[in-house]
Amino acid sequence: MHKVIFDTDPGVDDAMALLFLVRHPEIDLVGITTTFGNASIETTTRNALYLKQQWEIDAPVSKGSGDKYAAGEEIHPFPNHIHGDDGLGNIGVPDVVDVPLDPRTAQQFIIETVKAHPGEITLVAVGRMTNLANALKEAPEIAGLVKEVVIMGGAFDVPGNVTPAAEANIHGDAAAADAVMTAPWKVVVVGLDVTLKTAMSRATLAALAAKGGAAMQLLDRVSQFYIDFYDDEVTDSMVVHDTCACVYVVARELFTTRSGSIRVMTDSVGEGKTLQKPDGMRFGPSVWDGLPSQLACVDVDAENVMKLVEETLIRH
Amino acid sequence: MHKVIFDTDPGVDDAMALLFLVRHPEIDLVGITTTFGNASIETTTRNALYLKQQWEIDAPVSKGSGDKYAAGEEIHPFPNHIHGDDGLGNIGVPDVVDVPLDPRTAQQFIIETVKAHPGEITLVAVGRMTNLANALKEAPEIAGLVKEVVIMGGAFDVPGNVTPAAEANIHGDAAAADAVMTAPWKVVVVGLDVTLKTAMSRATLAALAAKGGAAMQLLDRVSQFYIDFYDDEVTDSMVVHDTCACVYVVARELFTTRSGSIRVMTDSVGEGKTLQKPDGMRFGPSVWDGLPSQLACVDVDAENVMKLVEETLIRH
Repeated sequence: MHKVIFDTDPGVDDAMALLFLVRHPEIDLVGITTTFGNASIETTTRNALYLKQQWEIDAPVSKGSGDKYAAGEEIHPFPNHIHGDDGLGNIGVPDVVDVPLDPRTAQQFIIETVKAHPGEITLVAVGRMTNLANALKEAPEIAGLVKEVVIMGGAFDVPGNVTPAAEANIHGDAAAADAVMTAPWKVVVVGLDVTLKTAMSRATLAALAAKGGAAMQLLDRVSQFYIDFYDDEVTDSMVVHDTCACVYVVARELFTTRSGSIRVMTDSVGEGKTLQKPDGMRFGPSVWDGLPSQLACVDVDAENVMKLVEETLIRH
Repeated sequence: MHKVIFDTDPGVDDAMALLFLVRHPEIDLVGITTTFGNASIETTTRNALYLKQQWEIDAPVSKGSGDKYAAGEEIHPFPNHIHGDDGLGNIGVPDVVDVPLDPRTAQQFIIETVKAHPGEITLVAVGRMTNLANALKEAPEIAGLVKEVVIMGGAFDVPGNVTPAAEANIHGDAAAADAVMTAPWKVVVVGLDVTLKTAMSRATLAALAAKGGAAMQLLDRVSQFYIDFYDDEVTDSMVVHDTCACVYVVARELFTTRSGSIRVMTDSVGEGKTLQKPDGMRFGPSVWDGLPSQLACVDVDAENVMKLVEETLIRH
């Protein structure tokens, strides 16, 4: 069993990833922490509570920071055109969801849970990396206590999606991402290099909805607006960015990785670009020296990833 | 015939590129302009004059700037460990070469020659892009008069060679490169994405030396130190970065290109990283808007490039 804290900004593809985590038999979802990104922190937190309620999820929800890692840095506009005004495809999520939040902040929840289960917690982070960076800053010792950090974000050898340089999760808080990538814990980055290869067709989603009960039916409804948006890139399908990172936790053999230190650019034209120094390459002294080697996913067995996702989403 | 101004920092692989230009029947080498990079501007200029003398080249040599495009920016140390203390593989180039320089600066030479042959000049730039950026700044109208700019430099979908982000020619004067890439002329970038696929073995070089006369024998001698340096990456061979760009001029069909605007990062971790926004990709308003589409080489028929190089180097 993998004990997972899911750091998320639901978010349509976050919803699918959450249902995957809930329904996969080898995942023990111990907590949901929210971050801004696909929508404001208020909206993503409300959505996390809504999905907890609708899907009867046991794990607590902790609210994350609404501010970026570097104090005072401006937050980019939220992508309502992708995830809807309600962050869940304009299905009409109620303004208030009558489910209690965990009293701890996301940052506190991460620190306490990691310390309570040394060596056991996998952090799956599929939004801005703000909460993880804040937790690291407050309690650097957690780096040695986390089992693994699996990130959906970044674009190494392919263009970004919010700028030609950057993927949205990294671009949205580049300084946080750089802190997370360069910390002495084990990071795996599942970025656009692989997630753009994994998509689910509208027809498949409908077929799963017919078999997967009310939870899958809600996911199907939530996803329609997002599929419409992506129509230019993948016809009648949704790219399953966030679920891809969750699949890594249980089926890493489906991914090809490259090992090397990773940095995130935080300036101007390159803001949010992820770069890796592959292990073994020689360079002079630089800001890359002395950093831990992390794994960047560079290829994926998309067919088997999608097969696993489909099988898992209808388990109940 | 292609009228070429060769902007160069000899430099071992520059020497091979120069001999290729001199010996290819469809190239009319109208001038050599020098830039710092593989060595100081004094050394590269002396070396250009030396090669002009040894190889009886008609084209004049103009001395380029010894300063970076942005006034006062510090110049990186020169790579004596790759090109030798004399910039030509420690073969013992005389301190003074008795061949006159063109009285014009490289910048003036470029501007005057381009204006004298509107629409006819191809600029092949295989060092820092300082001279080209300076010429553009002084006379922006040359952008519309140049036939094409072919650059050896950059690393789009592969790591750099001086930092994990950056290739040396771009890293050495990133602001100059950004000015050149974003100007309204036609730029083709032949970077590490393709040049690392083209190498010449020591044995091939020796065989060419046996057939190519004194000029090829000098090239063979010049190249040994450089081959030793690259031994970790390519066994007993030299990567022919600069010649690759020259081959593009006469055999572009051997290269696969991608069209899109190109920017160069000029800050901290990413300094010198080249990025491209492939044409057709959608993004919000950004610093990439309104820029000309340029071509980045993303693949190469290395076998036929090397065949052409070998055939050309022994023509005399």
